[in-house]
Amino acid sequence: MTKVICIPDSFKGTLSSGEICERLEAGIGRRFPDWECVSIPVADGGEGSVDAFLSYLGGEKIFLEATGPFFEKMEAFYGLLPDGTAVIEMAAVAGLPLVEGRKNPEKATTYGVGELLLHAVRKGSKKIILGLGGSATNDGGCGCAYATGIRFFNENGESFIPVGGTLKDIRRIDKKEMDPALEGVEIITMCDIDNPMYGEQGAAHIFAPQKGADEDMVKSLDEGVKNLAGVFRKDFGLSLDDVPGSGASGAMGAGMMAFFGSRLQMGIEVVLETLRFRDVLEDADLVITGEGKLDGQSLRGKVVVGVGRVCKEKGVPVIAIVGGSETDISEVYDQGIDAVFTTNTLPLPFEKVRHLAGENLDFTIDNILRLISLSGRVQR
Amino acid sequence: MTKVICIPDSFKGTLSSGEICERLEAGIGRRFPDWECVSIPVADGGEGSVDAFLSYLGGEKIFLEATGPFFEKMEAFYGLLPDGTAVIEMAAVAGLPLVEGRKNPEKATTYGVGELLLHAVRKGSKKIILGLGGSATNDGGCGCAYATGIRFFNENGESFIPVGGTLKDIRRIDKKEMDPALEGVEIITMCDIDNPMYGEQGAAHIFAPQKGADEDMVKSLDEGVKNLAGVFRKDFGLSLDDVPGSGASGAMGAGMMAFFGSRLQMGIEVVLETLRFRDVLEDADLVITGEGKLDGQSLRGKVVVGVGRVCKEKGVPVIAIVGGSETDISEVYDQGIDAVFTTNTLPLPFEKVRHLAGENLDFTIDNILRLISLSGRVQR
Repeated sequence: MTKVICIPDSFKGTLSSGEICERLEAGIGRRFPDWECVSIPVADGGEGSVDAFLSYLGGEKIFLEATGPFFEKMEAFYGLLPDGTAVIEMAAVAGLPLVEGRKNPEKATTYGVGELLLHAVRKGSKKIILGLGGSATNDGGCGCAYATGIRFFNENGESFIPVGGTLKDIRRIDKKEMDPALEGVEIITMCDIDNPMYGEQGAAHIFAPQKGADEDMVKSLDEGVKNLAGVFRKDFGLSLDDVPGSGASGAMGAGMMAFFGSRLQMGIEVVLETLRFRDVLEDADLVITGEGKLDGQSLRGKVVVGVGRVCKEKGVPVIAIVGGSETDISEVYDQGIDAVFTTNTLPLPFEKVRHLAGENLDFTIDNILRLISLSGRVQR
Repeated sequence: MTKVICIPDSFKGTLSSGEICERLEAGIGRRFPDWECVSIPVADGGEGSVDAFLSYLGGEKIFLEATGPFFEKMEAFYGLLPDGTAVIEMAAVAGLPLVEGRKNPEKATTYGVGELLLHAVRKGSKKIILGLGGSATNDGGCGCAYATGIRFFNENGESFIPVGGTLKDIRRIDKKEMDPALEGVEIITMCDIDNPMYGEQGAAHIFAPQKGADEDMVKSLDEGVKNLAGVFRKDFGLSLDDVPGSGASGAMGAGMMAFFGSRLQMGIEVVLETLRFRDVLEDADLVITGEGKLDGQSLRGKVVVGVGRVCKEKGVPVIAIVGGSETDISEVYDQGIDAVFTTNTLPLPFEKVRHLAGENLDFTIDNILRLISLSGRVQR
């Protein structure tokens, strides 16, 4: 019997990875009813990541009261996997959808993330996976740190909870009252972007506008993050300014490293490790992956490439189905992807083709399977 | 060894069938250097049809002086196949490109087509294949008929050579002086359209505007063709008015039937018969066909479907590569097409994607071959 693993990313703006899995499974069932299908919808750390982990691995979704983006109380959640690992998505308490109509990255806090962290470690988790992405904040993770007991002081020696607009007032950070439950806990931060803490490519300049910042606010936020980087150097001896990903989610990437010694890792790598993808592959005959867009250059953080690498190691063939692809993708093939198919059945712009994404995907997988079924007759 | 036949139509507006064959062969050579490739570029009867036949079957291209669209002398040609069959493309002496800047379907003639016909039969051809398509004329084939000796008379009993603008003056047609060399000659007319002689879907209304007719001229031309249909009934006892294809190429379809007893046949069927495609298939393992656009409804005249039907009969697998496809094409699969792949690597409108047609085709065939090469590992 043929065993096939479906492990797609979402097609951004059209189909969720869960829906893609359903359509792939249905298509396979129609053409090869005797094939065994395993679906692993991948999330990149943003909204839906907890559900994605739980849906494949099982475990528990923990609901609790926590602090929202503007210090209001709200219901939040995280995921507890069967092995005790906790999966937290930052978006659950500090996400953009929570501040719709009242965006303000000068005021928004990651305080709730710290509460989720603490709740999980107090329940016994020794490993935390934190998904960045889709944040409404620009506080360098200081709110999160404060919630765990870390203290921030201004030039008058007064303690305060820094937010985006007051990062520039921090003169000293003190970790000694951090909750001891966090000691010895491994925290992995899922992060697929390269941006540094500040500057033209930094957190404020690249991401704050979509969080509601105008030009002046961007400059002010950028100075705040730059000041935070200086205090990290002075108080912790850490130079995180240009570390790739330190600027992720309003410099939350830097904060996770500085406050908790967290490691930033590509989302797809974290997912594959956590799911023990290598073991899943042991008796697999085919892997089908995919994502919205594939190009030959920036392979960083690509689900398709992450999946390809492991499959290549294990000698399992991989087909990628993508919403769009450049034609010069030899580097993608080199990373273990055997064949790539795009879903644009008609020459239409994205605005039009996005409404056809489902039926186009069905068409594409059906014809791939048709070709597989006749290939035995072709080669002599 | 695997033997593959490449038999695509052109991708209208982007790639000729010859170029598609070259790219398919090159792609196959890169991935499977030991495969044997046979290329059969298909033409639909329009410009390039003679060359397409000669390139695959061999034979001779005969050049001669003939009469152009406005009765001027010009160099023309037809093809003489090894078995003595002559292939004539109407466009060679009555084509739109010949009248660029001076289009006038009231004045243009098919006289030269008759000269080519006569030249071929006098050289001994007993079978003629005439390709319609791309014509500048609306004369119902009367010019062609006149050149072979058929005579037309007006209400005063005067003989004249009818053109689009004077079809309405015909009162009587006399075949008795038609050149005897044409007796017993089989004439097959390649025609892929369904239009009747006249009326809203007729030759003038649908095709004359692109030949330079304004609204008034369209009406006048339409009346002329309607009159011709009446004379066909009266003098020949033939009711061709609504025969599908009778309106092709300015009602040349009707003329070929009425004057020469020609049979209208789908271009792809004529091509496949003439090339003895069934024999070519005997030891073939795979056929790759394709065309610009595939839909589930109008299968008439589709190269892909014509190829599929014969291959289905012979049990040879067929892959179609197309510039665009609807997703609901079960009828296409029913006609012997095993799998369909589209070439739109990115979600772009036709105006943009047409410039990428070559590299997109290369990408598509490469990934199809990649999938074929790994399929052996997939199925257990």
